[in-house]
Amino acid sequence: MRNKRINVAVTGLFLLTGMAFADDVNVDHDVISKELANNAVLLRERALLDNLSVDIVESLTTEVGPRRVGTEGDRRAIAWAEAKFRELGFDRVWTEEVPVERGWIRGEASAEIVSPYPHNIVMTALGYSIGTNGDLVGEIVEFADFDDLEAVPEGDSLKGKIAFVSYSMADYVPQADEPRMAGYGKGTRARGRGHVSAAKRGAEAIIIRSVGTDNNRYAHTGSGYGYVEDVRKIPAAAISPPDAVLIQNMLKRGEPVIIKMNMSSEITGPVKGANVIGEITGRSDPDNYLVLGAHLDSWDEGTGAIDDGAGVASMMAAAALIGQMEQRPRRSIRVLLFAAEEIGLVGAAAYYDAHQDELDQHILGAEVDGGGGRAHTLISGVGEESVAIVREMYKLIAPLGIAWSDANDATGASDMSVLGKAGMPALNFMQNSNDYFMYHHTPNDTFDKIIPEDMRHLTAAYATVFYLAAEMDVDFRK
Amino acid sequence: MRNKRINVAVTGLFLLTGMAFADDVNVDHDVISKELANNAVLLRERALLDNLSVDIVESLTTEVGPRRVGTEGDRRAIAWAEAKFRELGFDRVWTEEVPVERGWIRGEASAEIVSPYPHNIVMTALGYSIGTNGDLVGEIVEFADFDDLEAVPEGDSLKGKIAFVSYSMADYVPQADEPRMAGYGKGTRARGRGHVSAAKRGAEAIIIRSVGTDNNRYAHTGSGYGYVEDVRKIPAAAISPPDAVLIQNMLKRGEPVIIKMNMSSEITGPVKGANVIGEITGRSDPDNYLVLGAHLDSWDEGTGAIDDGAGVASMMAAAALIGQMEQRPRRSIRVLLFAAEEIGLVGAAAYYDAHQDELDQHILGAEVDGGGGRAHTLISGVGEESVAIVREMYKLIAPLGIAWSDANDATGASDMSVLGKAGMPALNFMQNSNDYFMYHHTPNDTFDKIIPEDMRHLTAAYATVFYLAAEMDVDFRK
Repeated sequence: MRNKRINVAVTGLFLLTGMAFADDVNVDHDVISKELANNAVLLRERALLDNLSVDIVESLTTEVGPRRVGTEGDRRAIAWAEAKFRELGFDRVWTEEVPVERGWIRGEASAEIVSPYPHNIVMTALGYSIGTNGDLVGEIVEFADFDDLEAVPEGDSLKGKIAFVSYSMADYVPQADEPRMAGYGKGTRARGRGHVSAAKRGAEAIIIRSVGTDNNRYAHTGSGYGYVEDVRKIPAAAISPPDAVLIQNMLKRGEPVIIKMNMSSEITGPVKGANVIGEITGRSDPDNYLVLGAHLDSWDEGTGAIDDGAGVASMMAAAALIGQMEQRPRRSIRVLLFAAEEIGLVGAAAYYDAHQDELDQHILGAEVDGGGGRAHTLISGVGEESVAIVREMYKLIAPLGIAWSDANDATGASDMSVLGKAGMPALNFMQNSNDYFMYHHTPNDTFDKIIPEDMRHLTAAYATVFYLAAEMDVDFRK
Repeated sequence: MRNKRINVAVTGLFLLTGMAFADDVNVDHDVISKELANNAVLLRERALLDNLSVDIVESLTTEVGPRRVGTEGDRRAIAWAEAKFRELGFDRVWTEEVPVERGWIRGEASAEIVSPYPHNIVMTALGYSIGTNGDLVGEIVEFADFDDLEAVPEGDSLKGKIAFVSYSMADYVPQADEPRMAGYGKGTRARGRGHVSAAKRGAEAIIIRSVGTDNNRYAHTGSGYGYVEDVRKIPAAAISPPDAVLIQNMLKRGEPVIIKMNMSSEITGPVKGANVIGEITGRSDPDNYLVLGAHLDSWDEGTGAIDDGAGVASMMAAAALIGQMEQRPRRSIRVLLFAAEEIGLVGAAAYYDAHQDELDQHILGAEVDGGGGRAHTLISGVGEESVAIVREMYKLIAPLGIAWSDANDATGASDMSVLGKAGMPALNFMQNSNDYFMYHHTPNDTFDKIIPEDMRHLTAAYATVFYLAAEMDVDFRK
């Protein structure tokens, strides 16, 4: 009811001001009909006013919270997602089981500097690390970054020592030829493989400065790339940026810095997750799908608001708003909420395996996994012939202040890259990152970090272009 | 040596540019001699370039860290301060014991929402709260602020319940007639007396939204005003702002929200602290003192960088820089590092008691207890006749971009207010608060929050005006 009322109010406003359909003035109506353009503009304006996406992320973070795969929280998230899809009027709702080879228990993590100056250190286990088996005490040896650690000859020079990679994403300035995220990529090298590299040099454990842009006293967890056969398994942990600075300042004094760590993390046997899928079924071409993705799982210390509640909510809301229109779009729209993204796109791989026979029915995909910031640039990854069509679609969201990129090299973000690499066309909005990497993978990733206006903007952008794509008879592969 | 070199470099620069002594162009040389003005400008410029204050706060936070009165950290801080004063060349260094009636053990604090949706809650005990004696489980009842709680008739309406004051300092906009800090003052009412008010209405415990301006997932600790005879003692704790929002969102759903708290805090018998005092002894009038204050103690979860490492460091550095000049100033300069400020200006009261016979020898005082932000306005609290003299002194720091306030109502901040109220004239710089109340009383109050340029600016401002005051034969009382 509420949405109906808003719809009427917006339409009324447009009639009064005469601005209603001015937005499509440059659109080629041989590509996008006048009626379709009008409907898209109305949808866009309604979505900008509708708080649905914000309400969904509030619901997920309040009623579920942390939801790492294999945990009770994840099971509650799956049930929540099914119920939410139904509540929002999706035509088909189902789950697809995702087996995960190994589970993990975070356990407790504590650390303190024993000498030369006693201090508590804020530390968290990196995902799928083993524990320390009681107290582990060792002298800290600092490495500026992963390359610095790798430069040490393999052997036992770090025997009895704790390797410490102090690389700071916050201080990294990407080179001119590097992508914007280079600072994160550089940080994830030590996060992902540091424990293997350090073990090959004899270290007892590795700690890294958290991969993040903040200076808050949280450790950012995240996934390692697992242990490697024939290399000794050692514990891996992240420490907070202020504690990294503290240790560096101690080390500058030239005395040995001794840390005591205790982590009760544990790798377990297989666990199960599930992809949860909601579909707005197309009225005339139901077996061709536009797919909107996000991941339902989250790390386990915050409530997963920006990573990836924002994606779940904006994609669910975008499809639900399309579903509230007078008729179903021609093609189906599927919202894919993936399992176990955080440990390596496991749910996306399972979806690919289960649906590879119908991959050519996946017409176009997108994923939001970078927080709830507003959309700033539309970037396509479609066949050459379709670029001009997408460009016409773009004209209907350009009034939102969104730029156009000529690159045409989008392959779908996060999970959706699995389908993108297999040939599915993609359409993605680059987003303002707000403070994404300040909160990412920390206890501080909570609902209050969502900026409602930005979430509505992002949702409106996706709703509009995917509505258009669902109504048009375009093969975006060509 | 380092300082000597900088001094020479600065002088050289001035000779080259001819700017050296232009700053005193408007100074009345019947009040401040040309030579004194020149020396003050040189000191000011040297202080702006000297990193001493930053080095001191780094030393305190790295080598000592948390230092709540009565703890091992506080004892180490006292030893650190004595050693640092000596290292910096102070002429006299001593401690004055400060007995504290009660000690307190923080213990552990944990909380979780049990129903309707399980969540871990970030909570910390408020200073000198009792513990919960095991798990304490109760339904949360929200009050918008302290007045809202006080409006409930005394009795047992909150029996079995946990009172929750959700007032947000971050959202408070001071009224036109309120001081800038009104939002903090309003928050400290529930922090200080909420446990008494809630107990009078039958509550089992009280939790408050942290008094702070941030939305980080830390609870801000702080001092209550103690328990009251004939009122049942109940535990008092602060929860993080995001967790306060979470609980409010749950409460909006209309179902009972049940929290389980566990705090092992404990009030103990008497403990001892100490004021630590360093003196640059005056060359001709050693028994009259200019006093620069800060508090050495800190809360126990961060390393006390902004509260009040910044004050300790800027005041020590200001006096030390004066001490590095060619000769001692006429009058003595004392740096007073107070004990136990955080639990109610206990060290300041002890200093007052011990020195009340010589209070009229305390010519002028100042305290920094608002972080390391730069000085923006000079405000005096001196006799009517002295205002014009202070105004002449002000001209020599005006080039730092500092404004002048005509109010002449400063009484000295924090500890120094004890001496100020007893009649000692005061001279204080109002400071940019930076993000003071984002970090204040949390684990996040760490060295990396110090902005070196700002600390040097603050130090230069105090060094310059207190050097002038120490050289001039002015009775600031008149």
